Amino acid sequence: MTTRADAERLDERSPLHTRDLFRLPEGVVYLDGNSLGALPRAVPGRVADVVEREWGEGLIRSWNDAGWMELSARCAARIAPLVGASPDDVHVGDSTSVSLFKTMVAAVRMRPGRRVIVLEPGTFPTDGYIAAGVADLLGVELRWCDPADPASAVDDDTALLTLTHVDFRTGAMFDMAAVTEAAHAKGALVQWDLCHSVGAVPVDLTAADPDFAVGCTYKYLNGGPGSPAFTWVAPRLQADLRQPITGWMGHAEPFAMSRDYAPLPGIGQLASGTHTVLALASLEAALGVWDGVRMEEVRRTSLSLTDLFIELVEARLPGEFEIVTPREHDRRGSQVSLRHPEAYGIVQALIARGVVGDFRTPDIARFGFTPLYLRHVDVCDAVEQLAAVLGAGEHRDPSYSMRNAVT
Amino acid sequence: MTTRADAERLDERSPLHTRDLFRLPEGVVYLDGNSLGALPRAVPGRVADVVEREWGEGLIRSWNDAGWMELSARCAARIAPLVGASPDDVHVGDSTSVSLFKTMVAAVRMRPGRRVIVLEPGTFPTDGYIAAGVADLLGVELRWCDPADPASAVDDDTALLTLTHVDFRTGAMFDMAAVTEAAHAKGALVQWDLCHSVGAVPVDLTAADPDFAVGCTYKYLNGGPGSPAFTWVAPRLQADLRQPITGWMGHAEPFAMSRDYAPLPGIGQLASGTHTVLALASLEAALGVWDGVRMEEVRRTSLSLTDLFIELVEARLPGEFEIVTPREHDRRGSQVSLRHPEAYGIVQALIARGVVGDFRTPDIARFGFTPLYLRHVDVCDAVEQLAAVLGAGEHRDPSYSMRNAVT
Repeated sequence: MTTRADAERLDERSPLHTRDLFRLPEGVVYLDGNSLGALPRAVPGRVADVVEREWGEGLIRSWNDAGWMELSARCAARIAPLVGASPDDVHVGDSTSVSLFKTMVAAVRMRPGRRVIVLEPGTFPTDGYIAAGVADLLGVELRWCDPADPASAVDDDTALLTLTHVDFRTGAMFDMAAVTEAAHAKGALVQWDLCHSVGAVPVDLTAADPDFAVGCTYKYLNGGPGSPAFTWVAPRLQADLRQPITGWMGHAEPFAMSRDYAPLPGIGQLASGTHTVLALASLEAALGVWDGVRMEEVRRTSLSLTDLFIELVEARLPGEFEIVTPREHDRRGSQVSLRHPEAYGIVQALIARGVVGDFRTPDIARFGFTPLYLRHVDVCDAVEQLAAVLGAGEHRDPSYSMRNAVT
Repeated sequence: MTTRADAERLDERSPLHTRDLFRLPEGVVYLDGNSLGALPRAVPGRVADVVEREWGEGLIRSWNDAGWMELSARCAARIAPLVGASPDDVHVGDSTSVSLFKTMVAAVRMRPGRRVIVLEPGTFPTDGYIAAGVADLLGVELRWCDPADPASAVDDDTALLTLTHVDFRTGAMFDMAAVTEAAHAKGALVQWDLCHSVGAVPVDLTAADPDFAVGCTYKYLNGGPGSPAFTWVAPRLQADLRQPITGWMGHAEPFAMSRDYAPLPGIGQLASGTHTVLALASLEAALGVWDGVRMEEVRRTSLSLTDLFIELVEARLPGEFEIVTPREHDRRGSQVSLRHPEAYGIVQALIARGVVGDFRTPDIARFGFTPLYLRHVDVCDAVEQLAAVLGAGEHRDPSYSMRNAVT
């Protein structure tokens, strides 16, 4: 069994030197960066400067003088390399849900006559809910596929296959290129939700060549609570793109204030209203931690951390949990999910001991591993606390009644 | 002619004592609060606390422990009284453009068989652009009305009349109750864009009884650059409301994470994705300046400020400008727009002298008057600077070439 001393040696040899770029609370092992990323040290000063100097002193002039107009494009340029994309093909601005809505509507309208959106039952809820709204609006229907082979549900009537690349509940990861190719072979468009992928696993949109992708920035990208999502559209589709929320910030000449709508060429047409400057400024500052970071090193560390967690859980608590997350590296995201009938109480008792994971209904204890600020010794400490909770029966404390948790 | 000493006396007698609640830059007369409101003093500390303590220390736990889940509802509760609404009928979250999209789609779907959206050519561009996108999506058409009598364009085929209450360019204000009643008489739904009304003029949605309203929070509500918009839906319509962007935050039980969508009852179903905590926290703190402020006093001061500006411009610069904004109090918002062929250079030269207004294409110099932080002496000083600019021909400086401005 790997010892804490072994873990220390692994940490010493790590090529990642980004932990000091984050503010981490004392006494906490944070295994929920897949829900809300930790605070990068660069953010508070940047946000304060935007509020006090750019807004307070510069006032309206800051849209030009402080570069607020370009904030969205600057964030996009920093995200693009993390997903194997050109900055010209990425837009940042709306919530994940609104972004999914725009691209799903656009996709269905690009395949007139095809009447089905295929998705899988374990998808993150908002993906399914948004798809249901789109289906209702456009008169198409949803078809739920088998996650073991999503493309088998795609047929000549399928406009769009939309999948979450890494499952929020299980941490299982699809083979993006293979699934995309299989769905494309049937003439369907393909969209990937990268919320649990971006910053967590290598993604190469250019190589996998799907049609649309949407991802979150407040998980592994540490943009702050509710920071705006990003959208990628394949460059080959942009000339024919018709997203439905045709607001003035996506207009070719917003300040001409002409009566009729004319979209910006390219990805910029995805913009609708005025973007949230505070949120994008926080995100831009947060994305600075990726400077010089190689995604392969993040991935290697992620697998090492999740391997170690699985190893120690099985060694210290044999038979206690079903390990829901795939053991095969090429099918695993950057989290480990443990099934247990008392998962809710276990997560609460762990939080009380300073190990922050989260619960996903009905019986999943979920632990995210963010290599930029987590160490192997944190994994050892977390498993020791888990063993202590179970050993003492702390998870059965009656104060841990079921209540809502947040993704 | 009103003198500066007269203006000082008017300021001394003012019942508004809110100016000290704002940080205003030295040496600036800010007449662009109708584009981006000034910084309330309470905001920097609140935003810093959200970033450093709630996010940095509390991490994911702050969704519950710091009340992030209720941020949107708390902002709504503070906005509601400013527009004569119940807090239960107001939602805060998306951009103005996305909010308009949701309500316009919902409205058209509530009037099946009716195939027209009526709007007026001078509406704020995004209103028209969004309507064009909705029309294209739902297979209805746009009809441009005469702003002198918008309801005359409404007929049996009209699903929705959507108007901006106060015109962004001219400052002219519609009679909300009368127009609403006339359009309702023809069976159409009515939506008001309150972007240039809320916090600027009294609005009583309950009395005027339209169907939908959307408003901005970064102008007269001082929420910060790009802060989220609010939406109001008449309570009698909420049971039949079907907004199209059916995201998980509008689900009846978001954390049940069930497969199928089921909306929250009431206004909460307007939510789509995770809201931007930083932006809403800034907005919530900014809304505190309205505590104890009576809208009638804001209106009285607004009219006094705009009356004085018109009087002094005409007295000091007779014949120089066309006063575009209506002189009749009941048709005037809280801005004064001056038409001049050299308006762009005039605005730039004024900014160089510390008087910040803005330019609206092709020939409007626009000045917003925000009674919470503007005084009558500021009006006197602004007009003196305007006279100085024109007297010295500073507006013809060749460095003031036309470029984009921001609303």
